[in-house]
Amino acid sequence: MIIAVRPGAAKEEVRVFASALEKQGVKIHFSEGASQTVLGLVGDTTGIDEEALKAHHLVEKVIRVQEPYKRANRLFHPEDTRIEVTGADGEVRRIGSGSLGIIAGPCSVESREQIVNIARDMKKAGAGFLRGGAFKPRTSPYSFQGLGVNGLDFLLAARKETGLPIVTELMAIHQLEVFDEVDIIQVGARNMQNFSLLKELGHCRKPILLKRGYANTITELLMAAEYIMAGGNDRVILCERGIRSFDSYTRNVLDISAIPALKKQSHLPVIVDPSHATGLSWMAPSMAKAAIAAGADGIIVEVHNNPEKALCDGEQSITPAAFTDLMGALRKYAEIEGKRL
Amino acid sequence: MIIAVRPGAAKEEVRVFASALEKQGVKIHFSEGASQTVLGLVGDTTGIDEEALKAHHLVEKVIRVQEPYKRANRLFHPEDTRIEVTGADGEVRRIGSGSLGIIAGPCSVESREQIVNIARDMKKAGAGFLRGGAFKPRTSPYSFQGLGVNGLDFLLAARKETGLPIVTELMAIHQLEVFDEVDIIQVGARNMQNFSLLKELGHCRKPILLKRGYANTITELLMAAEYIMAGGNDRVILCERGIRSFDSYTRNVLDISAIPALKKQSHLPVIVDPSHATGLSWMAPSMAKAAIAAGADGIIVEVHNNPEKALCDGEQSITPAAFTDLMGALRKYAEIEGKRL
Amino acid sequence: MIIAVRPGAAKEEVRVFASALEKQGVKIHFSEGASQTVLGLVGDTTGIDEEALKAHHLVEKVIRVQEPYKRANRLFHPEDTRIEVTGADGEVRRIGSGSLGIIAGPCSVESREQIVNIARDMKKAGAGFLRGGAFKPRTSPYSFQGLGVNGLDFLLAARKETGLPIVTELMAIHQLEVFDEVDIIQVGARNMQNFSLLKELGHCRKPILLKRGYANTITELLMAAEYIMAGGNDRVILCERGIRSFDSYTRNVLDISAIPALKKQSHLPVIVDPSHATGLSWMAPSMAKAAIAAGADGIIVEVHNNPEKALCDGEQSITPAAFTDLMGALRKYAEIEGKRL
Amino acid sequence: MIIAVRPGAAKEEVRVFASALEKQGVKIHFSEGASQTVLGLVGDTTGIDEEALKAHHLVEKVIRVQEPYKRANRLFHPEDTRIEVTGADGEVRRIGSGSLGIIAGPCSVESREQIVNIARDMKKAGAGFLRGGAFKPRTSPYSFQGLGVNGLDFLLAARKETGLPIVTELMAIHQLEVFDEVDIIQVGARNMQNFSLLKELGHCRKPILLKRGYANTITELLMAAEYIMAGGNDRVILCERGIRSFDSYTRNVLDISAIPALKKQSHLPVIVDPSHATGLSWMAPSMAKAAIAAGADGIIVEVHNNPEKALCDGEQSITPAAFTDLMGALRKYAEIEGKRL
Repeated sequence: MIIAVRPGAAKEEVRVFASALEKQGVKIHFSEGASQTVLGLVGDTTGIDEEALKAHHLVEKVIRVQEPYKRANRLFHPEDTRIEVTGADGEVRRIGSGSLGIIAGPCSVESREQIVNIARDMKKAGAGFLRGGAFKPRTSPYSFQGLGVNGLDFLLAARKETGLPIVTELMAIHQLEVFDEVDIIQVGARNMQNFSLLKELGHCRKPILLKRGYANTITELLMAAEYIMAGGNDRVILCERGIRSFDSYTRNVLDISAIPALKKQSHLPVIVDPSHATGLSWMAPSMAKAAIAAGADGIIVEVHNNPEKALCDGEQSITPAAFTDLMGALRKYAEIEGKRL
Repeated sequence: MIIAVRPGAAKEEVRVFASALEKQGVKIHFSEGASQTVLGLVGDTTGIDEEALKAHHLVEKVIRVQEPYKRANRLFHPEDTRIEVTGADGEVRRIGSGSLGIIAGPCSVESREQIVNIARDMKKAGAGFLRGGAFKPRTSPYSFQGLGVNGLDFLLAARKETGLPIVTELMAIHQLEVFDEVDIIQVGARNMQNFSLLKELGHCRKPILLKRGYANTITELLMAAEYIMAGGNDRVILCERGIRSFDSYTRNVLDISAIPALKKQSHLPVIVDPSHATGLSWMAPSMAKAAIAAGADGIIVEVHNNPEKALCDGEQSITPAAFTDLMGALRKYAEIEGKRL
Repeated sequence: MIIAVRPGAAKEEVRVFASALEKQGVKIHFSEGASQTVLGLVGDTTGIDEEALKAHHLVEKVIRVQEPYKRANRLFHPEDTRIEVTGADGEVRRIGSGSLGIIAGPCSVESREQIVNIARDMKKAGAGFLRGGAFKPRTSPYSFQGLGVNGLDFLLAARKETGLPIVTELMAIHQLEVFDEVDIIQVGARNMQNFSLLKELGHCRKPILLKRGYANTITELLMAAEYIMAGGNDRVILCERGIRSFDSYTRNVLDISAIPALKKQSHLPVIVDPSHATGLSWMAPSMAKAAIAAGADGIIVEVHNNPEKALCDGEQSITPAAFTDLMGALRKYAEIEGKRL
Repeated sequence: MIIAVRPGAAKEEVRVFASALEKQGVKIHFSEGASQTVLGLVGDTTGIDEEALKAHHLVEKVIRVQEPYKRANRLFHPEDTRIEVTGADGEVRRIGSGSLGIIAGPCSVESREQIVNIARDMKKAGAGFLRGGAFKPRTSPYSFQGLGVNGLDFLLAARKETGLPIVTELMAIHQLEVFDEVDIIQVGARNMQNFSLLKELGHCRKPILLKRGYANTITELLMAAEYIMAGGNDRVILCERGIRSFDSYTRNVLDISAIPALKKQSHLPVIVDPSHATGLSWMAPSMAKAAIAAGADGIIVEVHNNPEKALCDGEQSITPAAFTDLMGALRKYAEIEGKRL
């Protein structure tokens, strides 16, 4: 961290300020130029509060050279992290470090029959994981809020039937008690900075699929992962799912450049959700291919056997047939990119 | 709600689709043009899922004419809502319907002495409410997270000492048990779409200060209020606190136009937080004045007796002296606008 | 400007790099810490290309301490600039340095009668300048593009009739030949970074009303002003007119905080266009008041005697009666803020 | 176009309003419901001013069913447009309709030797077109503005030497006189809504490479193309080059979803500029691959033989060696996608 001291500051005052900083565990290097004094902070600056520094009357500018995250940082963990999950069929599925994870399924679980049938189709087409919402975050209190615990039961039935590990969203801490058999817990975009929830998930022994908030920076996403990892849970999967912009053609703008950015900054696997990002089923396959081309470790995609009758977000779901076609294309892309699928 | 049917759709299919819609409790008016059939849905459409409609193969476009919120809607509740809170001193403070509410205090509670002293200064300067964070949402898990329950105790001491009602942020449902004596519960911007939390607050008997998320629309803010109101708690105060943009001069862009927009759409009081919006203490007073000029029902502003030593966000806090000056200016503005302060 | 050198860089290489920089006219102060070398550049760094520096393999981060603009910078010109224009009636109108400039008129000039009548109403209500579009930038090539030279003639007729100085938009350099009698030349938001046009206007002897692009930063707006000033024309009026966001309630988001930001960074007058920013006539008066409360030096507002029949943008125009009311309110605000109106 | 009439409007008034609309060349279908009257406008509505309609007191909402562009619209021109350019070597290069166009070269032309050498490298690696800036749009008036006419001469020398068609940016209409031998004229992002320039290019017989403004919608980009096409020049290449967002990790956010969106709405070829979008050379190759995977018709990429010494934007240029590698990868992607390269 580098601090540019305000021109004209009294030397003595700067010394006092610097020794106060040193008490926070860093070493200070002074550079006293004719017109500008610069302080270089050496050591672990993750605990130093940038905002507080900026408020100090001696401080003109503050520049972080090191990133504020540690456990999620590739600098301190150069090898890719790979998440491994063993399904009910004893088979191991992998995401990251050369393995593509394909997570597919409907937006909401609607019935036991529906989810079991889709799960069978997904497995046949080559998906590695089954997704499906039981607790649904909905903008309106009057919209369908998901089947809740019943939905979870139906998902578990599909898991038993097909062996596919299941991924589903947790909306509140108290729901953890019914998530015992869930394989991967999803944190939705709107909860990415629900810090109480993140802390709790740090004590959990399951992989967490952490979705980027639709107006959160790369750094904020990694700080959210850091919250989980700081609690002891290192198995975090990052998920880009679109950011807000001024254009309404797609629901959000899928930030494909977040993939190489996150892969460079962090060792955690990065997947992409083309369905929620665009909100348009016809666009999901091309965005899924672009994601793999850009280096993603997998995708999470909405598939519904009858998108027109979907209880939520049908517009963004592709059919099982379209998913099968997509898997065919992704296999070719995986081969070019040297990834296992 | 108006539905433009896809050109070329079979008449019979459209009829079947329309009667399915009617089963959801609305009446359908047909308009069959030469090239375009249009369906008009009459009745209460708040429960109809716009996304699901758009997914239907017969549907080209959907247009909401009515807003998707009901209890927060000025249409069904033309008079301004006024929130009244009685302080420990027996005095009633008001926000809305002609009364300006001024909420002031430090970002975080740091000690009993600090908060009691600031509270006395605030009261003397004319503030109606004391704010202070005990549970703090921080981007980094390594930053100061607030004093928690101790912080709450110090706030209550200041409340007892000065009579000022207190406003403080709730981050998780389970904290409700220690919020018994809090006068107004704040929901932070990052939790604006934490729907589990909102639902729970719907069953609560205290006023809720609901901050707009930094990337949420006017409609989404009103839908978040609707979540609380749908549970039976009508005492919601809306708070604009800046939205994200491409410019980093200020932390966020204070959306002053949200004030008349929210006042037109809803009967709920609207206040503004110039401190978090801009992140710059020198800018807070001019933004506070602009807010009142634009029709706001109050402000929530950060005041710290020693901004440079603030444990968080010192850069955005004004001094008690600056706050006293600001109150002087606001009184003149209130008079012009015909508001009580 | 401060350069953090990449850790591990060879000392000799850094010396060579530094002396290359010194050839660009700055002095370099070295700070060699144990883990990080920092270079401080002293002198005029406005000509140093930050992007090129960042590309250098020795460079880790670059921080500008000084702003990249000089003539527009308040640092080198602490007193407020005031723009004075003498009308055809011999009266002097002022914008800036304590004087509020009120510019009003229709979006487009539609006929001689229309513009002369509105001009009379505007003058009577107390406006200082008449605005009206002759050359109109329109999103669609099939929309009304303005009356062109005829429109200019009608504007000049209104100028002669009322004495009000006129403000109108220039869209291309070659139009300058017919702008001889125009008092203030407007550069539209879409042309804010039309650098060829800006350079040409630097050689012009008329005040330039420079509108902020709807996705341009504070710094970019000041750099656009710098283009004009670098050519020798110091009479630039900055105009905030809304920025793009994710919300479509208003056409753009009026960035009220740009007013104090621009006033702090620059000595140039700053006015606000509430009509184009919001696109909603009912919202324009409250935004105009907020602008003055936040320290603006004036407003430019659309007024049309028959908004419903306006050939463009009627939705955002207020009536002459509403304008008269607004002037009444602004006079009270001007008094509180100690401004002349 | 569908107009929802304001509830309670007098029938007679609506009739008068409708017949006024019919005079603009459309037919009106009435739908009078119990609570809502809806007008359906049939025919060519591209000339109808949506903004003016919205201002009318009888109008509640307006919904465009048809897009406001005609010549750029795939609806009226279902087959892909292919741009063909014959180089000085007699070879034909193609962009669109199954042919990938690869445009490569430095940000600025710096010397005859530099551009001729790069051109040779580009041709050898398989590029189809040479890019290079002679007139440079720069944020600061004090930055290098390009070599101007000399730069053009050097480009033409490289064209003669290698046979590669050249692509270079035009910043002002008067420069057209020296663009005689330029093969493709580029319109920069900042000039995308410089309507005077677009109109002039409509009368030009050369292909236009039209870059999307960094805060412009899909529709606005197509309307800018429509400006050119309305003048008679149908050879427009659309170029996505990143949009502004709240995150500063990359310079802009490359909107990969714009590719399928533009291809669906329009028949014009769509290419992508990964260099300007991200501003990071290490990210350009993965973004180029993502673009082709998403269906782009080509890329325009910055290559510099010595990025560290580049006079502008070195940070975003890749080396000729990296470009050769990229071409190898793109050939595999082209094959999978069934495109010619």
